[in-house]
Parts: sequence; C-alpha cells; structure tokens
Amino acid sequence: MPMGLAVIGAGYWGPNLVRTALATPAFRLDWLCDLQSERARAVLGPYTTVRATSSYEDVLADPGVAAVAIATPAATHFDLVRSALEAGKHVMVEKPLTPSAAEGEKLAALAQRSGLVLMCDHTYCYTPAVRRIRELIREGEIGELQFVDSVRINLGLVQPDVDVLWDLAPHDLSILDFVLPEEVIPVAVAAHTSDPIGARRACVAYLSVWLSNGALAHVHVNWLSPTKIRTTVFGGSRRTIVWDDTNPAGRLAVHDRGVDTLQAGTVPQDERRDALISYRTGDTLIPALPEREALMSVMAEFSAAISEGRPPLTDAQAGLRVLKLLEAASRSADSGGVRISLNGAVA
Amino acid sequence: MPMGLAVIGAGYWGPNLVRTALATPAFRLDWLCDLQSERARAVLGPYTTVRATSSYEDVLADPGVAAVAIATPAATHFDLVRSALEAGKHVMVEKPLTPSAAEGEKLAALAQRSGLVLMCDHTYCYTPAVRRIRELIREGEIGELQFVDSVRINLGLVQPDVDVLWDLAPHDLSILDFVLPEEVIPVAVAAHTSDPIGARRACVAYLSVWLSNGALAHVHVNWLSPTKIRTTVFGGSRRTIVWDDTNPAGRLAVHDRGVDTLQAGTVPQDERRDALISYRTGDTLIPALPEREALMSVMAEFSAAISEGRPPLTDAQAGLRVLKLLEAASRSADSGGVRISLNGAVA
Amino acid sequence: MPMGLAVIGAGYWGPNLVRTALATPAFRLDWLCDLQSERARAVLGPYTTVRATSSYEDVLADPGVAAVAIATPAATHFDLVRSALEAGKHVMVEKPLTPSAAEGEKLAALAQRSGLVLMCDHTYCYTPAVRRIRELIREGEIGELQFVDSVRINLGLVQPDVDVLWDLAPHDLSILDFVLPEEVIPVAVAAHTSDPIGARRACVAYLSVWLSNGALAHVHVNWLSPTKIRTTVFGGSRRTIVWDDTNPAGRLAVHDRGVDTLQAGTVPQDERRDALISYRTGDTLIPALPEREALMSVMAEFSAAISEGRPPLTDAQAGLRVLKLLEAASRSADSGGVRISLNGAVA
Amino acid sequence: MPMGLAVIGAGYWGPNLVRTALATPAFRLDWLCDLQSERARAVLGPYTTVRATSSYEDVLADPGVAAVAIATPAATHFDLVRSALEAGKHVMVEKPLTPSAAEGEKLAALAQRSGLVLMCDHTYCYTPAVRRIRELIREGEIGELQFVDSVRINLGLVQPDVDVLWDLAPHDLSILDFVLPEEVIPVAVAAHTSDPIGARRACVAYLSVWLSNGALAHVHVNWLSPTKIRTTVFGGSRRTIVWDDTNPAGRLAVHDRGVDTLQAGTVPQDERRDALISYRTGDTLIPALPEREALMSVMAEFSAAISEGRPPLTDAQAGLRVLKLLEAASRSADSGGVRISLNGAVA
Repeated sequence: MPMGLAVIGAGYWGPNLVRTALATPAFRLDWLCDLQSERARAVLGPYTTVRATSSYEDVLADPGVAAVAIATPAATHFDLVRSALEAGKHVMVEKPLTPSAAEGEKLAALAQRSGLVLMCDHTYCYTPAVRRIRELIREGEIGELQFVDSVRINLGLVQPDVDVLWDLAPHDLSILDFVLPEEVIPVAVAAHTSDPIGARRACVAYLSVWLSNGALAHVHVNWLSPTKIRTTVFGGSRRTIVWDDTNPAGRLAVHDRGVDTLQAGTVPQDERRDALISYRTGDTLIPALPEREALMSVMAEFSAAISEGRPPLTDAQAGLRVLKLLEAASRSADSGGVRISLNGAVA
Repeated sequence: MPMGLAVIGAGYWGPNLVRTALATPAFRLDWLCDLQSERARAVLGPYTTVRATSSYEDVLADPGVAAVAIATPAATHFDLVRSALEAGKHVMVEKPLTPSAAEGEKLAALAQRSGLVLMCDHTYCYTPAVRRIRELIREGEIGELQFVDSVRINLGLVQPDVDVLWDLAPHDLSILDFVLPEEVIPVAVAAHTSDPIGARRACVAYLSVWLSNGALAHVHVNWLSPTKIRTTVFGGSRRTIVWDDTNPAGRLAVHDRGVDTLQAGTVPQDERRDALISYRTGDTLIPALPEREALMSVMAEFSAAISEGRPPLTDAQAGLRVLKLLEAASRSADSGGVRISLNGAVA
Repeated sequence: MPMGLAVIGAGYWGPNLVRTALATPAFRLDWLCDLQSERARAVLGPYTTVRATSSYEDVLADPGVAAVAIATPAATHFDLVRSALEAGKHVMVEKPLTPSAAEGEKLAALAQRSGLVLMCDHTYCYTPAVRRIRELIREGEIGELQFVDSVRINLGLVQPDVDVLWDLAPHDLSILDFVLPEEVIPVAVAAHTSDPIGARRACVAYLSVWLSNGALAHVHVNWLSPTKIRTTVFGGSRRTIVWDDTNPAGRLAVHDRGVDTLQAGTVPQDERRDALISYRTGDTLIPALPEREALMSVMAEFSAAISEGRPPLTDAQAGLRVLKLLEAASRSADSGGVRISLNGAVA
Repeated sequence: MPMGLAVIGAGYWGPNLVRTALATPAFRLDWLCDLQSERARAVLGPYTTVRATSSYEDVLADPGVAAVAIATPAATHFDLVRSALEAGKHVMVEKPLTPSAAEGEKLAALAQRSGLVLMCDHTYCYTPAVRRIRELIREGEIGELQFVDSVRINLGLVQPDVDVLWDLAPHDLSILDFVLPEEVIPVAVAAHTSDPIGARRACVAYLSVWLSNGALAHVHVNWLSPTKIRTTVFGGSRRTIVWDDTNPAGRLAVHDRGVDTLQAGTVPQDERRDALISYRTGDTLIPALPEREALMSVMAEFSAAISEGRPPLTDAQAGLRVLKLLEAASRSADSGGVRISLNGAVA
C-alpha cells in the first residue's frame, strides 16, 4: 500500500522529484504544488491523474498525504518545512536545509519531537560512486585520509538568491560529510571569493576546510567556467581515489600510487632525510558500479526511513553540519578569507 | 661565430640545458660543470668534445666563455650568479632566481651595473601556448581578465630543499607575470598549505593572488596527486582560454562562452535583476600552434638578448616579481593563511 | 488541435516514443499497444490517462487515431505498417523499415498511393550534430568528401533476431545517406563479419561502402567492445569533421587539417612528385550546437510532414536505400567479403 | 668491452638509432653513414667523436665494426643487408625487412648460414605495453582471443616510395605477430584501400586478417586523419585489453567485461537461445608499466642476441611473417578486396 506524497515546487528541481516519485512504487504521488499552479500543470502534462494546486494548505490538510518533498527557494524552507511537520507530514527538503543553522536546528528539534522523518536531499550521497567512496574510506582501503580536493565548475546559472558557495558547495560539503571517517570532523574553514562580473554575489569561490586529523579539504566552485569539471580526489596513505563525475566510462579510479614517509625510528638517524621518502606507482582499479539514478535511491531511502521509523542516511543533522560549514565559509569570505574555527571563533 | 657557453649543474635540469645548447647554433658549448665531475661526464656521454669539470673557477677564468647557464640548487644561485657576473659573463639561471628577493635584487643591480644579461629560465613563458595566451590577453581578445585558475598537480618528487610552493608555483606565477595585461599587477596573496605525509614541508598548497583589476588568480600545486593535471583557465569578459598542457591534441581552447552582466543604465531600473545577466554559449576555437620545444626558444632568447644588448623577455625583474609573490605566499602560509599585501603588510 | 497518435510496441524503444509523444503538443497520445498489455501498462505507469491495449485492431479502428508510431521487432514491420496504411493511418516505423527491400518497396508504394506519410525513425539524422554535418558537407565547407570512417562499438545486447550489422549499421548508413552530397551515391559494398562467441550471428562487422565520387566509407560495428566508441570522421579536401557522440563537451570538431595534392599542370613536370603534396595544420573549430533531444525533433518532423502533406526528411525512400545497403552487405558477408555492386552484381 | 656499431641512414629514423646507440653501453657507435655525408654530420652535430661517412664500403671494411643498424628506404634493404652479412656484420634493419618476401627469405637464409644475427626493428614489440599484452594473452589472462581491432591514423607524411599499408600496417602486424598465442596463426587476408587525394598510392586502408582459431583481426591505417589515434583492442573470452598508445595516463586497460555464451549441453535444448548469453561488467584494471623507451630495449636486445649467439625476439622470421601478410594484403587490395589465403590462393 503506497504512501501519499506531495511534491512542493515545480521550478528547476521539482520536475525531477515528480518523475522519480512517479516511478517509486512505495509512493503514490497525489499533488504537485506550486504558487503558480499553471507551472505545476505544465510539469505534470496533459495525461496525468496527479493533481496540481497552488494551495499548500490544501496539501497539508489532505489526510491521504503522508509525506512532502520540498523543492522551493531556500528562503521559503523554514516556513514550509515547519508547517508540514506541524501538520504531521514527513519531509524531504532540498539543500540547503534552511538559510541559517539556527532555523535548521529548530526544524530538526521539531521533527525529533514529532517523531517525523526530516530528510535532506543530498542527492550526490546516493550515487553509486559516492557510496563506494564512503566504503573505501570507512573500511580503510585508502589508509589514512590525507587530502581532499574537489572541483565543481561549469557555466552555471547565476542564482538570484544565493552566491556560488551556497549554490554549489553544499554538494561537495554534503559528500565530504557523508564519506569522512566517523572520527574525523571539520574544525575550521576559510573561503576566498570573487565577483568578477558585477553580479553582486560571489561567482567564484575557493574553500579550505581543515579536518580534525590534520588533513586539508579544498573546494573550488565556479559559475563562470566554460568547461564542466566535477572531479574530487580523496588522497589516502594507501590508495587515492579520483572521482570524475563527468566521465561515464570511468567515474571512479582507485590508484595505488602515492608518496610514503617511513616512520621515525625505523631508519637510523644518521641517514639522509631523503631516505625516508618512497614512492608507489602501482596499478589503478576502475571498479564496476551499478547503474542507478541517485534520485531514485533518494526516494527509496525517504520511504524506507518513514516505514522503518528511523533517521534517513542524510538526516537533518547532516543538513545542519553542512549549513554550519557554509555559514562559517561566508563569514570567512566576508572577512577577507580569515580562518574561522567551527566553534565560531576566528581560528 | 658562436658564443662560448658553459652549463653549470648536471642534476635534474642541467642535461636539458646541455641538449638544447648543443642544438643551438648561436652557442658553442664549452663546459659542463658539476661539483661531481663524474656526473657531468655521464651527462655528456663518451662521444663528446665538450669538457666536463668540477671547477667553477676554471670555467669563469676561460676567456672563451661568454655566458653561463646555471641549473644548481636554489641555495647556490646567489654565489654562482654573482661570481659569473663579476667575471663578466652573461647569466641564465633556473627558477627561483635566489631564495630571497633581497639577494635577487642585489644580483639584478649588479647585472644592470655591469651591462650584462641576467635571464631567468621561466621555461613555460617560451611555450607556443603561453605566448599565444599572452597575445590573446594583451591584444584584448578575451576582453577584461576576470579570473585565473591554475592546477599543477602530479605524483612529484618531494624536494629536499624546498616545499611544493617553491618547487611548482614558480611556473604558474611566472606564467601569470608573463601574460597579465601590463596595467594589471598582483596586490595581495594568501596561501593555505598542508603536509599530510609528515615530510616536514608543504606537499599541497593553495595560493590566492588578488590582482589590481579586482580579479582573483588561484593556484593549486600538489606533489601527492596520483594523476597529472596541468590546466590553467584565463576567464575573460569576451572569451575564456583553457590551457591543458597534458593534452597534445588541443593544448589551448578559446571558448566564446561566458556570463555577461548588462551595464547599469541600459536596463530600466524597475526590471528584475535577473534581466541583467545573459549567457553566451558560442563556438570553441582550438588554434594551431607551432611545434617548438620551449627550451630551444629559451636558448634563442638568451643568445639574442646578449647579441642585441637588451633585456631578455624574462629578465631579473621578472624573476624578482615571482620571488616576491613566493615570499609573501610563504609568509601567509606560516600565518595560517592570512592575506598579505604585496607591499608587505597584512592586508 | 492535436492529432491522435498510437505507439505500437512497449519493448526497448517504445517507452522513448511514449515519453516524447507525451511531450509533443502536436500529438495527443491515445494508445500504447503491445501484445502483452501488462508491459504497456507498466510503461505508462499508474498515473496516466493514456490507454493500454493488446489489440492492434482496436487501435486501427479508432477514428480518433490519425497516426501510429511502430517500435516492434523488424519481422513484424511489414504486416503492422501495411495494416496501418490500409486503415488510413500515417506511420512512423523504427529501423529497419522491413527485413527485405522487396517488402519495403511495397510499403513505400502503398503509402504513396494512399497519400499517407510513411516515415523511418532514423533518429540520429535529427541530432543537432548530424544536421550540422549535413550542412557542412552540402554547403561545401569541407570541400570534396574524401573518406568516411564510422565506429559504433560497445558492450551490446546480442539481439535474438538480427546480427550486429542489422542492429547497429542502420544508424551509420542512415547518417551517411542523410549527409552525403546529393550527387554522391553508394555504388558497391563489402562486409567482413565474425562471430567469435558462438552466438550464431555476426557480433563484429566491418563494412566498406564505395561511393560514386571514388571515396570509401567504412563502418565498424561491434557488440563485444568493453568500451563505448561512437565516432565518425568525414574527411574532406578543405576540412575534416570528427564527430564524437560520446563526448558531451565537444561532439563536433571541424579541423582545418589535411593533405593536399596540387593539380597536374600547376607544377613543372620535372619537379619531384613530393612537391605535389602539401600539408595544412590549421585551427580546429568546435561549433556550439543547440541542445535538443533528437527524438523530440523526430516527433516534430512526423507531425509537420502530416500537417503539411509532404514527405518527411527521412521517408520510406531513405529507409529503402539503407535496406539495400544492408542486404548487399549481408550478401557480401555470406560470400566471404566479396564486393557487391548496388545494382546487385558481384562487382 | 663494447661492440663497434655503425648506423646506416640519417633520414627520418636514423637519428633515433644514433641517439639510443649513444646511450647503450654495450655498443660503441663508430660510424653514421649516409649517401649525403652532410646529412650524417648534421645529425651527429658539431661536438661528436663519431665519424660521419658516405662510404658504406669503408664501414663494412672497418674490422672494429661488429654490427650495423640500417634505417634506409626499403628498396635499399636487400643490397645493404646482404653486403653487411657478407662482410660478417650482425644486422638490425628497419621494417619492412625487404620489399618482397622472396628477398627476405634469401637474407634470412644467408644470416642463418653465416651464424650472424639478423634482427628486425619491430620497435613496438619492445614497448612495456606490448610486452604486457603478450604476457596477458600467452598466459591465458584474457582467455581465448576473440577479436583484434587496431586503429593507427594520423595526419601522416605521404611517403614517396610506399603506400599507407606498407608504411603503417607493419607496426600493427608485427605487434599481432608478437602477441598471438603460439598456436594461432593468420590464415587469410583481405584489404580495401583508397587514394582519395590523387597521391597515386593508397592513403587509407582497411585490412582484415583471419586467424586460425576463427578470430578476425582488423587494422585501419590512414594518413589523412586530422586526429591521431593509436588504439588496439584484444578481445578475449575472459578479459579484453584496450591499448591506447596516445594516452600517457592509462595506456593499457584490462576490462573484465564481455559477452559469454554457455556451452551447448549445459542448458536444456528447449530453453530459449537468449538464455545462453550472459554479460559481465566487472572492474577495469590499469596496470602500472615501467617507463622505458622501446628503442633502448631494441638496442639492448640486439646487443644481447649478438653476445649470446641467439636469435633476437624479433628475428628475420618475424620480419618474413609480416612481409607475407603485407604482400597478401597488397594482392587483395589490387584485386578489389578479394580474400587471399596465406598459402597464396584466393580463399
């Protein structure tokens, strides 16, 4: 017996939620809601039995609706999510959870108190590539994580409401949050941004995230690049993973290549420092990955979390951790790139 | 009548200087000098008429030698260059010019007083690709420079005497220095570095360089990457150049793609801000470039500057400008990434 | 007022016809018909107003249906198309038109007599890339066509009813048919095939097509390749086009590179033959192409041809020309690769 | 104590032999001989102790010369090799061994009688990639060889004395000869060629080689391609190897991907044929390969074969096998592509 679902927002991302909801047997899509009901109707097309509406109230009042999936501008998230939770609906919401961590915390607490699922649609965490990366890192395959370098650049839509950091970096930060070993956490952030086209918001941003194990993670996001690059490198002491999300033939490569330093004590002190460094140039493995659309897995996780009464893989806490990184990054960028500790202090 | 030349240093780079000097008709290679004369002999091989020596004094005392090309560790540059200039020899020296700008300035002044050529071997500036980039930027083809992003990563030799910034970033900075429009200069620098392998020097570095026209240039250098990437993007208001130095088939691509903002005043004030942004997705041109080894052009420029009594394209001043950027970057990295103004102040 | 359309066949390709028909305002999708009505219902999903049926008769008897789009196995095409034409319906049919040219000719004649549109879904001809290639060739941009080389290989489904030639080469041959200058036609064919896995049908095939202007076109199709390659080169006397259909960043490259021979008479007879050859290594242009799904353009062309009472771009004659090439190729392969003239003789 | 060596021919390839001979301690390069002694002097440069000469007689008369390496036009090979062998010199010769198999057989017999090494410089067989391919095939890693597809195309020099088959296909055929399992031999050949630019020799050629185990090997060589492709696929029943010689980052990829057919008998006869086919889409391995210039290994093999009095890896018999394939291919091309059995009959 499928659960009733409503999708809220028929803009850029909403149609993807509609399409995957229609293909998810665990859900019965009842509504597509948009302030412009015409837009909702256009997304559904002329052949549908799904209802379009501009009334969020009607959706929330519908007892057949057990869950809502919200894809509206970030500024509306707080009100929409709160109303849904108050109406007893489970909620999935696009990134960022809310524009501020303070609001996000209120929603997380409300969901917790109400016993409802509040899930963040961190879509990339549900790709077969990122799931495998998480396994490779958490099961020790790459050894100790030494550095992360992520590039996400393209000729992108300059957003009316957010800068490039808030538009694109949530992807990289949610992936980072998802794959980091459990004992490793971000401790400080710095960001350098630039608006070279006079868009009145950052269009190019470089983000450094210091991790608790001493490693540095770096993110480059850019709306102005003529070419599309989506590559993330996870450097480890035993293996290094290169994930090229634009390369269908070999999205993930696991390289047995790297630089090793011998531990102090294992080499007589009077030998030269050079002797302490060695190089591996071993094979590269490109693992076969299942072909599965990430958003289908997102829908499956949302429905499973509801049925099983458990937090989803990417719950409100995950969304909050990403939010706090973004807030610290913005503070840093506004202060000329100063390093911001994640307990809030200038580090 | 070719000029007598001596190459100093038979280590990593010296053999390349020897090979190209042998193929340059304007020079007559007389000596290869290395503290270990065996190493010099091995580089020259058993069939040569060129003399190997371990005595720099003998080389400088040879009146047939008009010029020396120095490829020794940076720490030796100051003494070697000074002695050569004092002996009346023209000098070409590998990057960096010296370990400190203060020393570099003394050498530049000495060369100036002596009427001798002091050239920095900024090899990349002599590649057909970088020469074309300089033309495209300086002749206005790309419009106003909006951003620069340079990535130079590979599994690299952890150097015994310098960190990754001083090892690799001189390439990116000398290229930047070479191609920037004349009226645009760097004004501030910040660097974030990391040593995740316990090498006791930075192995990963991110460098932000703020330019006087408001654009941000960024450099990523990394010794630990399992894959080799050498890509620089020069974003402009009219065109964007992508230079992929590892792609023999299309090293340089000039994209007519970008984001434009309309000038205030051309759009009625009450229209939405969105209207001010437009996108171009035009053709990409991959210009045919001549096939010419950069180091052959370096040798040609060195000999031409000597013959014509003029400063070379990459003179001591170019070397000094790069040095000052590196020094500021190191200061920033040592201070946790703080922004350093190029007049020396924390910006 | 949209035209009533029925899609016949809910197997591999039918769902694509359904999806694009639903998005084409000129059509009103009335039926999806499959021998297994369950399969049709599954394709339509639970939210649709479109009817599923297993009765082709009911579809043809529906006066609201003006057109049918047929995506069933090739062996059924003759009967299904004939019935539809006899019922007064316009028809679009997947490749190949029919298993034999003789049958195809009957259908073409029937459509002609009935004044109905009979269109072949040569999908690739409607890609922006192939349309541009046709323009570049037909408008003289590449000069005289000198050679064509097409590779279409992948780990592919070994088909139960056809070999790799009939499965994949129709794509290459329909593209060739579409872009050739009007005065250039295929004159002979030879094919070498192989079944190395014991599939009892060719899994690897090489096809040579001699053209009336002396050029040779070659097609490599292969179901066993571990990597996917879809590249076609159109070599011309002035420019050469390389189309890489798997490369989203630069599907089409127009190279000003080639080998020229000077005309006899322009060089004194006593000079060496070598002098008659020269090389161009000019720029490469990657034209911006519109983003448009080919199958949407197929649907638009089908509806436009019906409305305007004109033959579609890829009409039954185009389908027949492709069929005749395939038949000749099969004859050649069955005879050990002998060259088959397209008037039917061994050439 | 190094052996005296002379290099004959200072044209396109000779300088490479000189360079590698100079770097091979087992040889002492005594002479570079070219009909134009100026050309030989230019190759050696002004700093050398190696002698240039235009007199082949002088070289052969020099008792210090134990071996010659010949890189002259093919038409001269027979006379030059015979004279050298008659003078008691070991010989390495560029491909093709001679213009005709008949001549080649005489040379092979002469070398045999004289107890001298006669080696063919099949350079590619000495690349780390081809050596690994040979191991992977001969040690059963890929299972049974099912198909070979080789593409070697580029904007190439139209040769004055040979067509594209004789210029480029020797590389592919010598590699094929080198890596085939010992019990698998070529049994028939067909070739389709084209001269679309009026060069009076084939500039584009497609070559099919049927192997004794039923597999088909195919070679595409082309002087007119604007892009350089050098890719060979070795399809096997267990693994498939893709070798991309232009890709420095991953020259060799071993794919655990393929199509399997179950053996007759293992599946009940009344089940559908489809059940007999299954697909593997496993991991891909990119083996680390040593970095070693192939021609250095050629020199090492030449000297080792001489010292050890054994046939080299690529001996005259290997050269003869390649020659016979080329001769058969030319006969086929001259007869419109008819299949030629390698015992000489039209197959």
